[in-house]
Amino acid sequence: MKNIGIIGAGVAGLHLGLQLRQNGIPVTIYTNRTSEQVREGRVMNSVAHMHVTLDLESDLGIDHWPGDEYRYISHYHYNGWGEERSYAGEFTSPSRTLDYRIYLPRLMEDFTDRGGVIEYRDLSAGEIHALTDVHDLVVVSTGKGEIGAMFPKRADKSPYDRPQRKLAVGFWHGVARRDPNGVEISVIPGVGELLAIPMWSFSGPVMALLFESVPGGPQEVLTDQRFEDDPEAYRELTLEMLRTHHPTVMERINVEEFRIQSDKDILQGGVTPVLREDYVPLPNGKFLLALGDVHLTVDPVQAQGANAAAYSARVVGDAILEDDVFDERFMQKVASRRGERIEAANDWINTMIHNPPLPQIPALFTAMAANQALADEFTENFNYPIRQVDLLGSEARVSAAIERAATRAAVPAR
Amino acid sequence: MKNIGIIGAGVAGLHLGLQLRQNGIPVTIYTNRTSEQVREGRVMNSVAHMHVTLDLESDLGIDHWPGDEYRYISHYHYNGWGEERSYAGEFTSPSRTLDYRIYLPRLMEDFTDRGGVIEYRDLSAGEIHALTDVHDLVVVSTGKGEIGAMFPKRADKSPYDRPQRKLAVGFWHGVARRDPNGVEISVIPGVGELLAIPMWSFSGPVMALLFESVPGGPQEVLTDQRFEDDPEAYRELTLEMLRTHHPTVMERINVEEFRIQSDKDILQGGVTPVLREDYVPLPNGKFLLALGDVHLTVDPVQAQGANAAAYSARVVGDAILEDDVFDERFMQKVASRRGERIEAANDWINTMIHNPPLPQIPALFTAMAANQALADEFTENFNYPIRQVDLLGSEARVSAAIERAATRAAVPAR
Repeated sequence: MKNIGIIGAGVAGLHLGLQLRQNGIPVTIYTNRTSEQVREGRVMNSVAHMHVTLDLESDLGIDHWPGDEYRYISHYHYNGWGEERSYAGEFTSPSRTLDYRIYLPRLMEDFTDRGGVIEYRDLSAGEIHALTDVHDLVVVSTGKGEIGAMFPKRADKSPYDRPQRKLAVGFWHGVARRDPNGVEISVIPGVGELLAIPMWSFSGPVMALLFESVPGGPQEVLTDQRFEDDPEAYRELTLEMLRTHHPTVMERINVEEFRIQSDKDILQGGVTPVLREDYVPLPNGKFLLALGDVHLTVDPVQAQGANAAAYSARVVGDAILEDDVFDERFMQKVASRRGERIEAANDWINTMIHNPPLPQIPALFTAMAANQALADEFTENFNYPIRQVDLLGSEARVSAAIERAATRAAVPAR
Repeated sequence: MKNIGIIGAGVAGLHLGLQLRQNGIPVTIYTNRTSEQVREGRVMNSVAHMHVTLDLESDLGIDHWPGDEYRYISHYHYNGWGEERSYAGEFTSPSRTLDYRIYLPRLMEDFTDRGGVIEYRDLSAGEIHALTDVHDLVVVSTGKGEIGAMFPKRADKSPYDRPQRKLAVGFWHGVARRDPNGVEISVIPGVGELLAIPMWSFSGPVMALLFESVPGGPQEVLTDQRFEDDPEAYRELTLEMLRTHHPTVMERINVEEFRIQSDKDILQGGVTPVLREDYVPLPNGKFLLALGDVHLTVDPVQAQGANAAAYSARVVGDAILEDDVFDERFMQKVASRRGERIEAANDWINTMIHNPPLPQIPALFTAMAANQALADEFTENFNYPIRQVDLLGSEARVSAAIERAATRAAVPAR
């Protein structure tokens, strides 16, 4: 019986482990954080699971959060230019948001309940190499520094050598949800984006405010000024940014109640986007397979990281189920099958965060304000990165999409 | 409305044209042979359409030959070594054989009936370039010499610089079909293969005898000696080869009736296998897309050429339907989607025709003689090149497959 080792207990590692346990395959997950440490740690992200990912979770039997309170159906757009600034796009089926400090510990519990083994250890690159003698296949789904660096960067798909946005995400009280529930996407030239994401955390509903700030622009201070140094000053600064740049979010704020509950509910930093090789050969003739963040690291602006990781885990899981030999052919098979969608997520995000903006992006956002079909298509495509790159990969593609949407539904935007 | 040009009226070009016409898209097919010339010409191949291809034809509404007389369900194997030499594998669903001089003219008729345009012209490479100004997309699905050479050979997937088998295929009367109907696969070390394929031609049932002869071996004379020079001598030579090397086919021959009906019912030659780049850029900023034989040329020993071409046509057709811009992204999308299966067909065939035989192939064929599940798996995999390479891509993979099949069904072969 094949025996699989997985490095990392994030969404990718846990999804893969759960699928393999559903099929009776021995799996060990290696992580350096217990579920208690995850639960009590710092906020990890403000991720949304699109309906394609919820379908994967349904297959895995981990749909523990079916309620409407975790779900949203709309994107509320605000463009910082033009006459028509506000419009909305609608998904065909809702997305789900849930604090990963709730989500991941529950999946760890599911995994061990199903007979999966979790070993709590720090692992060096050398120790990971040695695990290939213990397991038929070792999948590396997390790891910064030397572990990520085992997988060479793909120069053809990694255009940036530094973060294109400075990031700050906090879980805030005092921001009203829209009805129907949705994510606010406020895009301001020269400033960056604000995503207001209705999130569910330990205390119930909160609003994740994800500030994506253009380096050198007026909003980057929300990343540079550390929250912990002076929480009240940071709160005031946040309100100032909202008043100045993001009116449609500001109007939903009850200033009296506007606050971050805990020092652990805010994360500041930045991401250098990178797509790494799918696998690396080792001196013992075996291979390591990359999964999740180790393989694809994206800026969070389009909420694709976790969705790409879950998709990739399914491809890897299916390939493991159908194969008994984990040679280079296996590795190439995985690379071939996930390549189109993973590269599309990568290309889509890297198109969105280009500085200065690529010309088709403001063209698309302007057109969406006047065309409901196009706004809905852009929204629904958060499930389908391939279609999204088809839509916005170039000026010619945006022109074609505008023309197509105009003939399809000449109705004004919501 | 997008407007597509297709060079070539073989199975790939016609399947693509028919799919596009089903969806109302303007299509012109360019060919230098009328359907009358095809019908009255030389036999083109001895191809079988596997059930996955029949499913594609059903979607296209071109299932004009539903009868059992066109279908077979089994592979009858004969190994030229060992104690257990004869065994059979069974498909889950039948394959179909039909003379392409009947098949292609009917599809050309379907295509024009559906409003497709056929232009009868010889085209140079330069004229094909010029067609990219007339059509939004030009797909090149046939063409030898300078036209094929427009698409660079992929060195990583084209291991041979000359044919690995000398080929001779004739449509013979006087060879009895098996019951249930099936293809005989006779494999003789140092000699090559004989495939006896129950075919349907103008006169009804015939047997295609496809001799795949190792260069320098005793059977190559069937390619080197031209049939037309002395048909009776060629017939005698064929009988001699059958008696000497292929007993399970010989025993089905009625020598009195054994004959080729027409000079046009035999084809002698050889194929240098090659996988070419999916597309090439042109000086005008457009691209040419390769399809069918122009893209992938395989030895006919595993009957994959037409099946791969039909699969590839569907991938291209689906991509055309979903896209409006035929830029490099479109080309890469097609390459990414069809890559795994096309490369698998290529790798499978090139593994089978290696000289000398790769060690896992006689190991597999010996094991199949003793294991029905394995023989059935190898047979059914003629529909699934990816699974076939999973099965036989290396010694380790064949060992794993033998072990898996043994635990699955410890029953003797038919």
